Amino acid sequence: MENFTFWNPTKIIFGKDTIPLIIKEIKKYNYKKILMLAGSGSIKLNGVYEQIINTAKSSNIILIEKWGVRPNPILSHAESALELARKEKVEAILAVGGGSVIDEAKAIAAGFYAQSIWDLYEHIYPISNALPIFTVLTLSGTGSEMNVNAVLTNEKEKKKWFIGSPLLYPKASVIDPSIQMSLPWHQTVNGAIDAITHTQEFYFMGSNQEISLSIDEAIIKTIIKSVDELSQNEKNYDSRANLAWSATIALNGLSGIALPGGDWASHRIEHAISALHPEVAHGAGLAVVMPAWIKYIYKYNEKTFSRWAHSIWKENSIETAIEKMKEKYRSWSAPVSLKELGIQKNEIQDIAKNALLNGNVGNIKSLSIYDIIKILEIAY
Amino acid sequence: MENFTFWNPTKIIFGKDTIPLIIKEIKKYNYKKILMLAGSGSIKLNGVYEQIINTAKSSNIILIEKWGVRPNPILSHAESALELARKEKVEAILAVGGGSVIDEAKAIAAGFYAQSIWDLYEHIYPISNALPIFTVLTLSGTGSEMNVNAVLTNEKEKKKWFIGSPLLYPKASVIDPSIQMSLPWHQTVNGAIDAITHTQEFYFMGSNQEISLSIDEAIIKTIIKSVDELSQNEKNYDSRANLAWSATIALNGLSGIALPGGDWASHRIEHAISALHPEVAHGAGLAVVMPAWIKYIYKYNEKTFSRWAHSIWKENSIETAIEKMKEKYRSWSAPVSLKELGIQKNEIQDIAKNALLNGNVGNIKSLSIYDIIKILEIAY
Repeated sequence: MENFTFWNPTKIIFGKDTIPLIIKEIKKYNYKKILMLAGSGSIKLNGVYEQIINTAKSSNIILIEKWGVRPNPILSHAESALELARKEKVEAILAVGGGSVIDEAKAIAAGFYAQSIWDLYEHIYPISNALPIFTVLTLSGTGSEMNVNAVLTNEKEKKKWFIGSPLLYPKASVIDPSIQMSLPWHQTVNGAIDAITHTQEFYFMGSNQEISLSIDEAIIKTIIKSVDELSQNEKNYDSRANLAWSATIALNGLSGIALPGGDWASHRIEHAISALHPEVAHGAGLAVVMPAWIKYIYKYNEKTFSRWAHSIWKENSIETAIEKMKEKYRSWSAPVSLKELGIQKNEIQDIAKNALLNGNVGNIKSLSIYDIIKILEIAY
Repeated sequence: MENFTFWNPTKIIFGKDTIPLIIKEIKKYNYKKILMLAGSGSIKLNGVYEQIINTAKSSNIILIEKWGVRPNPILSHAESALELARKEKVEAILAVGGGSVIDEAKAIAAGFYAQSIWDLYEHIYPISNALPIFTVLTLSGTGSEMNVNAVLTNEKEKKKWFIGSPLLYPKASVIDPSIQMSLPWHQTVNGAIDAITHTQEFYFMGSNQEISLSIDEAIIKTIIKSVDELSQNEKNYDSRANLAWSATIALNGLSGIALPGGDWASHRIEHAISALHPEVAHGAGLAVVMPAWIKYIYKYNEKTFSRWAHSIWKENSIETAIEKMKEKYRSWSAPVSLKELGIQKNEIQDIAKNALLNGNVGNIKSLSIYDIIKILEIAY
């Protein structure tokens, strides 16, 4: 067991009919003018937007709306949102959407007090302050609603990088799983695979941290069970709710307690893939990369990978467990090879180079370019 | 899945050699004069006290010391500590000890702004404000280091009652599991049984909250495994650490997520026992009461009790699982009958009456005096 510090002050409001409560939270802080950040408009179809603007109006809160956040959010959009936030002198940001919207909100919140947003992602100077962030989550997966992390793509430089700071904990997040019932199936699956991957990034670092390893197994198994149930009935509320809360705690600090950090190689390689191929959804990329990474890396911490094979997949062989994992992902209609993502074999070197642009990749083993190429070849 | 709100802002600093860090946390808030609350002096033997006073001195923080908090802390001691806190105009409280010391610190913290401490426990008026609380935990079990609850005994009226308020979250708590290596064995066991019972108070309310039920199983199993390991080697750091963190999250909000509250009948009956018999340690009382309560109550939520029998004890029969639970507790040298606690059969009625003094007992089934007598007879 490693020493650790745990502090997570985000307030979570979870359940049916909770959307309007985010405005009450904003009201408690007495903020009057808010940047409302959103994606392409799905929140107009599921009634979320209407509930928010109506409650804001009756609470005398002005929402400055900024639409158009993309999956794999991009720097230029964050910069134009920041310009609006400064012009309108907003006091806080309300992100309404999935992890992309919340991540971009964090970029704007921290960028508000910086010379340039991208400097923060290059870690040229630290985050000194941030606008308060509130969120309404519409797609569970990234865990961004209850953590300090944010990923952003610099589309010109083809870099998908991240920031993290305790200043970026949302003040409050509303999670109403019932609004996720109308999601396209592949989005539910991508979110679930992202959350499984987050848990496993920590889990595979483990050895004797019994409580964290067994909680991580509980998270992974619950996500698998919930997605299986949803594949039968997408409108099963309890499955949506179990999946949603599992995804939140997969990356709110809990899953990595007393572990020596996470590995993050799978994430770093996926970020390289979607930096070069922005059309690849994060969860889909992870579905392809992590099984290949496990295959390449398990010999370096075999005891814990064996525990995983046994606990999650009821298998004594790690190799067979990997096949079962891929089979499961395939049964959810997720891609399990680079080819299925539309990537050419001759791009592998560029992806590997891109992954290494932002420093060391991997903790179980610090991966060389050769290692990453091998993993991508397995994934192909 | 029930709707829920989760908010827990306590900062946890966990691990070896972390004791002095509590003074750094106090320093961050710029508090200068602190009431240091402690028990009977064991912290002078294990070096904790010395580390704290030395760090406080070099940080120019004045500690007003108040010793003598008893297991099952009592109102009169809390009142005398409050008098001292007021006289010295302290700005915060530092509790150094187990759950009893932290609970009494919460009584003083809330009492500081009330007309009388006991009024708060009678719920005559709500807690309006509280002194900031910092803690150094020396015995894992109650979870008080990361929650809002506090139990206190009014020794004159023979009432062991509780308060709870978000104002009572400690600002920061230090948990160094290595200092628990020198605990008397029965204290380790009592703490562990308290934590198992906390988890089960929530767990047995469950139905379809897969993520919480499986996390609760992870907590219960980890505690059992850790105590078993410690019975072989009391100085096993990883077992101490796994037990300590499990006990914290058994009652920090996580274990009850999306469940319809907890049952708490076992706790309420135990509180009645130790209100009348202050020499009975809380964990020892729970070791006796909960198995009897399970035997009496399981038919009201048989599916979840069966799940527990299977998951924790690898048994299809709930009755056999209860026997295994008692056997396990016995193997740890915990008492498993009222008789072993030194209680006479003719006291059962008084205990049952005392349990009902503070309103309804039990959620799975609201227990009548007849029910409680039956449970106590099973426990005898």
